[in-house]
Amino acid sequence: MKLASLKGPTRDGTLLLVNEALTRAIAVPDIAPTMQYALEHWHAVERLLINEFEAIDCGTDRPIIDFRQALDDGKVAAPLPRTHQWLDGSAYLSHVERVRRARNDTVPESFYTNPLMYQGGGDAMLGPRDDVEVLSEDWGVDLEGEVGVITGDVKMGATPAECAEAIRLVVLINDISFRKLIPAELAKGFGFVNSKGLNALSPVAVTPDELGGAWSDEKGAGKLDYRLVCHVRGQWFGNPNAADDMTFSLLDLVSHAAKTRPLMAGTLIGSGTVSNHDKATGYACIMEKRLVEQFELGAAKEDFLRFGDEVEIDMFDHHGETIFGAIKNRIARAGAK
Amino acid sequence: MKLASLKGPTRDGTLLLVNEALTRAIAVPDIAPTMQYALEHWHAVERLLINEFEAIDCGTDRPIIDFRQALDDGKVAAPLPRTHQWLDGSAYLSHVERVRRARNDTVPESFYTNPLMYQGGGDAMLGPRDDVEVLSEDWGVDLEGEVGVITGDVKMGATPAECAEAIRLVVLINDISFRKLIPAELAKGFGFVNSKGLNALSPVAVTPDELGGAWSDEKGAGKLDYRLVCHVRGQWFGNPNAADDMTFSLLDLVSHAAKTRPLMAGTLIGSGTVSNHDKATGYACIMEKRLVEQFELGAAKEDFLRFGDEVEIDMFDHHGETIFGAIKNRIARAGAK
Repeated sequence: MKLASLKGPTRDGTLLLVNEALTRAIAVPDIAPTMQYALEHWHAVERLLINEFEAIDCGTDRPIIDFRQALDDGKVAAPLPRTHQWLDGSAYLSHVERVRRARNDTVPESFYTNPLMYQGGGDAMLGPRDDVEVLSEDWGVDLEGEVGVITGDVKMGATPAECAEAIRLVVLINDISFRKLIPAELAKGFGFVNSKGLNALSPVAVTPDELGGAWSDEKGAGKLDYRLVCHVRGQWFGNPNAADDMTFSLLDLVSHAAKTRPLMAGTLIGSGTVSNHDKATGYACIMEKRLVEQFELGAAKEDFLRFGDEVEIDMFDHHGETIFGAIKNRIARAGAK
Repeated sequence: MKLASLKGPTRDGTLLLVNEALTRAIAVPDIAPTMQYALEHWHAVERLLINEFEAIDCGTDRPIIDFRQALDDGKVAAPLPRTHQWLDGSAYLSHVERVRRARNDTVPESFYTNPLMYQGGGDAMLGPRDDVEVLSEDWGVDLEGEVGVITGDVKMGATPAECAEAIRLVVLINDISFRKLIPAELAKGFGFVNSKGLNALSPVAVTPDELGGAWSDEKGAGKLDYRLVCHVRGQWFGNPNAADDMTFSLLDLVSHAAKTRPLMAGTLIGSGTVSNHDKATGYACIMEKRLVEQFELGAAKEDFLRFGDEVEIDMFDHHGETIFGAIKNRIARAGAK
């Protein structure tokens, strides 16, 4: 299934089922009015949702929503418009290695066995075409292209295999970061608060079965074997493979998060910025490109995002079709509208 | 007003209005079914809620709930049973100074002007009489007695004065911490994930007007001029004044959180462990007592919490009446029930 949310009438939005081509959608308020409701009642609603999903393209009495139009009109929210928990891992060590190398530091051994993860703010998530509003360009605004999972309830101490049973949806994330605020904030030792903005999610989230063998076959469970295609300011920026060079799978990350407390349905867990050791695949964040430039050229050249700049994050299946739809966010001055 | 929540039927609970004495309560589902709903529609429901609140003790057609009985029966949830955002400050520098002194370190100058704050998990909060379930006593289970505020919507960049307008409720928090997991996790640099458990909140949250001059008069806006009375294992543990030695007010903390992003209605922001420079006031967490013992006696004596141990956190007005009701949490082995 592919699932999305329309904005309103409440802050949790209106759940939509979207066809494979991402052109037609239906609301199913009698089954699940919101994504959060569906996640909390998954076992009761899953079969009903599948039936309705399968009917979108082959006959339904429900009113059809033109999903592309809704997207163009800015009416599509994040599939999960807000969450009670957003946790972001850092599963691609090539990203961490480049950060550390730039400051003449190495990666501690423990980073290869014990995942880095921070707790983020999920009280509002941006829709796939929403502007990223900031007060200043001086914050060093950057995208971070990630793969994420949305879980059902996970018990405390769940193993990665047990966590696999609780993966409800897979989604793309643009984890907005304010690079110039990060060093001072991390130096305080308590993680990120001011140096992360609201995230944007892809137009749809999909159930793992939509991903077929790319989700779990060759490269291991909880890794998504497709390329994350990123554009910055209209230019190709990178297409790292999201399964390659991934030290911790999304199942490992969920299990890590659940070590000392249960996770409630609707928890969103991110992979961290997708990154490959092979530089030819480019980057899913500006900072990483700047670090490589700094190392190789002596100075960073690629600028952080300015007002009006747009970023795009997408992923395509083996037929070249978009799986989640594209995230396209423009940077805007807060309150300018 | 004093507000609480009953457990169920949904994870957001059922909003209750509770009389001053914390003995009688009413549900008002036609006005606001849940606390989250009330917070999102505050300007529309506030006057209606006040009318109902004032009627509890002087005549209402609504069925009266015996609040003390509901509390004893474990039917009372946290006033806000879950939140989309929980941020915890560290406003009492005597707490930070003791931590640092124990490791022969000083407090950086910037800590007196730029608040420490971390993003925590709020996908479920414990009720005031719920057990704290942990898998192991070896985690070093500790209470942290705090004062917190629950906000309405706060715009990005809001000043402390602007944040004052968005303070809806004041509440007590037991921020459960796993002391022995903290050093390794903080060393990774991304803040707390595994080393914090689910929080518990006091039986009721109160509107600032309930606190009269103790909220904002003498010691400054956004500080609560009452003592936080803590008991551990049935013994008096401390009663530090929550306004004394508070470097950052709760308004400062909300403003800090909103520096680079808006905060959505229902955000919970904590003061950090209440702590006074005067040791005679005791402590609101075990670790701080241990640090002082270590410094003065050469070794820590007070043990962290074991299965079966209970902690109690309360606060009394000038007539000796409890304001928020007592938090009483017992430590239990997860899954033992």
